[in-house]
Amino acid sequence: MPGRATPQLNLPLLLDREGAAPLQQQLTEQVRRAIAAGQLAPGARLPSTRALAAALGVSRNVAVAAYDELFAEGYIGGRHGSGTYVERDLPARPRAPLPAPAGAPRWLRRPPPPARSEQVGAPPSRGLIEFRPGMPATGLLPRAVWRQVWRAVAAEPPPNVYGAPAGDPDLRAVVAAYLGRARGIACGPDDVVITSGASQAFDLLARATLAPGDSVAIEEPGYPAARNLLLERGARLVPLPVDDDGARVDRLPAGAAAPLLVYVTPSHQYPLGVRLVVARRLALLDWARANDGLIVEDDYDSEFRFDAPPLPTLMGLDREGRVAYVGTFSKSLAPALRAGFLVAPAPLRERIVRLKGLTDYHTAWPVQRALAWLLAGGHLERHIRRVRREYAERRTILREELTPLAPRARLLGLDAGLHACLELAPESGLDARKVAAAALARGVLVTTLDEYYHGPPDRQGLLLGYGGLAAADLRRGARVLAALIGETADGGRQTAEAASAGQPGHR
Amino acid sequence: MPGRATPQLNLPLLLDREGAAPLQQQLTEQVRRAIAAGQLAPGARLPSTRALAAALGVSRNVAVAAYDELFAEGYIGGRHGSGTYVERDLPARPRAPLPAPAGAPRWLRRPPPPARSEQVGAPPSRGLIEFRPGMPATGLLPRAVWRQVWRAVAAEPPPNVYGAPAGDPDLRAVVAAYLGRARGIACGPDDVVITSGASQAFDLLARATLAPGDSVAIEEPGYPAARNLLLERGARLVPLPVDDDGARVDRLPAGAAAPLLVYVTPSHQYPLGVRLVVARRLALLDWARANDGLIVEDDYDSEFRFDAPPLPTLMGLDREGRVAYVGTFSKSLAPALRAGFLVAPAPLRERIVRLKGLTDYHTAWPVQRALAWLLAGGHLERHIRRVRREYAERRTILREELTPLAPRARLLGLDAGLHACLELAPESGLDARKVAAAALARGVLVTTLDEYYHGPPDRQGLLLGYGGLAAADLRRGARVLAALIGETADGGRQTAEAASAGQPGHR
Repeated sequence: MPGRATPQLNLPLLLDREGAAPLQQQLTEQVRRAIAAGQLAPGARLPSTRALAAALGVSRNVAVAAYDELFAEGYIGGRHGSGTYVERDLPARPRAPLPAPAGAPRWLRRPPPPARSEQVGAPPSRGLIEFRPGMPATGLLPRAVWRQVWRAVAAEPPPNVYGAPAGDPDLRAVVAAYLGRARGIACGPDDVVITSGASQAFDLLARATLAPGDSVAIEEPGYPAARNLLLERGARLVPLPVDDDGARVDRLPAGAAAPLLVYVTPSHQYPLGVRLVVARRLALLDWARANDGLIVEDDYDSEFRFDAPPLPTLMGLDREGRVAYVGTFSKSLAPALRAGFLVAPAPLRERIVRLKGLTDYHTAWPVQRALAWLLAGGHLERHIRRVRREYAERRTILREELTPLAPRARLLGLDAGLHACLELAPESGLDARKVAAAALARGVLVTTLDEYYHGPPDRQGLLLGYGGLAAADLRRGARVLAALIGETADGGRQTAEAASAGQPGHR
Repeated sequence: MPGRATPQLNLPLLLDREGAAPLQQQLTEQVRRAIAAGQLAPGARLPSTRALAAALGVSRNVAVAAYDELFAEGYIGGRHGSGTYVERDLPARPRAPLPAPAGAPRWLRRPPPPARSEQVGAPPSRGLIEFRPGMPATGLLPRAVWRQVWRAVAAEPPPNVYGAPAGDPDLRAVVAAYLGRARGIACGPDDVVITSGASQAFDLLARATLAPGDSVAIEEPGYPAARNLLLERGARLVPLPVDDDGARVDRLPAGAAAPLLVYVTPSHQYPLGVRLVVARRLALLDWARANDGLIVEDDYDSEFRFDAPPLPTLMGLDREGRVAYVGTFSKSLAPALRAGFLVAPAPLRERIVRLKGLTDYHTAWPVQRALAWLLAGGHLERHIRRVRREYAERRTILREELTPLAPRARLLGLDAGLHACLELAPESGLDARKVAAAALARGVLVTTLDEYYHGPPDRQGLLLGYGGLAAADLRRGARVLAALIGETADGGRQTAEAASAGQPGHR
């Protein structure tokens, strides 16, 4: 039977006293293997032969002989005075890969989760003008405020207990007050659940409400991340077309075919950027009442509204407890914080809080405290006003450069948010993917609208996230697109120079 | 049709031009309702009548008349010079509760998620000596190091893109190196997934592998949070008894009845505190190979090992790719950080990374960066050495005070971790719940072993988390327990004074 291991050496060694191989040989082989596998790094200290022998319960001679052999082979160095260590000059050996199961094990028979269609998580490329959606202008956050907030958080040592699953009480209070002020939602701290981003809020909502096979209406085109979560949950999707007035809620099936949930982005439809008109908001609430449905309102970038008047949130209009509202700090602050929030009718909220507790106990304490400081000090709202002015300028640039492309291409979604959509007219003969490929060849990254469809696309366009682009880059990038789209318009060809981004860093 | 709303006032107002009520009356009623509902707080600024009229597209007379009426009623104040605002001296009105759905809506027909049986998330009570498990000594973390690490994190503005779902590359690299050094797991950065605590790792593992009705072996007694996650997933549970050598892996069903997953805590069984002996570790790996099963190794507090030699991790012993290893920073640092990690064979890890991306994109960036600094600077390992010494002292106190209770009660689990279990002998006639109630009456909080059982308990005991208790409190608390358990032992009765915690803060 395998025996004891050594305390000094954190690497456990197992000697088999009843095995065929002598103990010394077992010991040298195991140390060799650990060095070869990278478990013992070059320069790592080894215990003395006395300590090793004591820990393993073998005679000291066994340990001395093993070390002598390893020393002679060049695996270990030192031995006297400075102690024994793994030889520093060993040629770097590739670490053996983790073992992988052979064939198709039973525990890998589930369908694999949907892969993301969006290029999320890829770091921005240098020298590329990226119209990537969902990139806010975090650089406008005053450095001093940011440092000060984290200094305040780090002034307290971290608590040694878990926090409340629903979230930090201070943060919930300031979020509730903010929602009352800015979004017309009269809620209290207890109505708010802090989540690890909006995506976790959707995940918890789906888990709380849906059994596999339940149907959910989604916007088409729509937000791929929400769609993938629903597919992972086994939901049947009911696509709702979107026109200039938002989702066609008149197309919602009623009666026995009525979906359980309707997922919408009324403030700034993702990806088209249009707003759901008030008449449709009211009709959607009527539908929910008549068909016993739940509306999930994704209010992801409503902080950024420009000339347009505010429209009431579905949650603010609801009198029946049929709306779950989801917000996020990903657009108003930074996506990498992973913080969002959810307001839902009490019986649903209680289930969500339980699920949140099961899944990750609560959202990270330092992040919640930092947000509580940012909101309570008014820093978030000041930051929002600052970036709103900046986005308004950027949007003016887009309008100036791209509006002249009508009727071949028209801009949608400039009223709000931090992305717009450049729809390509069917008559134009333009192919969005070809335009995007040509733009990339000229240093400009855009995504195409077809990536946001669940089914076959019924329109073509480019998604233009402008939150993360400085004015000069934005204008250069827009001109590249205008040149590419205008190129075939007048039948002429632009010179390569005029149609390239030409920014210094780009090759 | 409802009409426009006002931009200055973020609260949307909806005027119905075709409605029966005059526009002025609609306006006053809506402002009154917003004030009553708390959407407009006392002192909130209102737009000027000119701006309001313009935004709503009504004549200025309508706005002036509405404000006059609200002013006369005492809802608003100011009016000239300093602007119009909601009256500050309004009696506080209870905010109307959020609307709730009537009856049992379709979207609340799923079984409610399991509620937590443990008292997690409740703040510690002042004046109570709490033997709550899972409370590490965060106070020993040097304040200067903690502040310095967060200063380093806050020196960079937050990135304006999402991070990698598998986690920050720097953090994964230092975690992989740490696992090689401390746990004998030869893995590279790409093998590691950073999760929002160990519970999220279990959740992702369950979602990646289990369909409803699949069976999973768990330890009995075991960790309630992992059990609840499995129940929420619809798993059938196969309880494995635990003796002094750890889980009885010889009881694992084989063949067609073999569970898909086996969840174990081999380093320090939760809650009993015993360690899985090497023979059973090897037998468990053999079982997994023979029965095509996956072992989930929860190594939640292995950093804290005392006189006992280290035992090899299941992951370190595995040659077949049949182990998923889960670790956490909740015990080595602080639970409120919500950070853990997972190492799994490649095909399983890829699914988990996809699910992680769907669920919350990635773990909070500031937390990941702070941990990367703490690990790379050697601060975490220094902290672990420091608290290990401290825990060793605390454990000595427990041993001194409670070992004399044998054979009526015996201490288990002192070799490792930061909690022990005081098992009450069946012959003692003691009832753990009664002992716990009597202890609480004397200012000492302990949980009872029955809370950790899925089925009917087969032994009685008290769980003694000692990580969060200072030496003096620990000794006082242990003496209260000793007095209570000794009380009936010798048939005599202690005085209330001798058996009470008697710390100053307690009433």
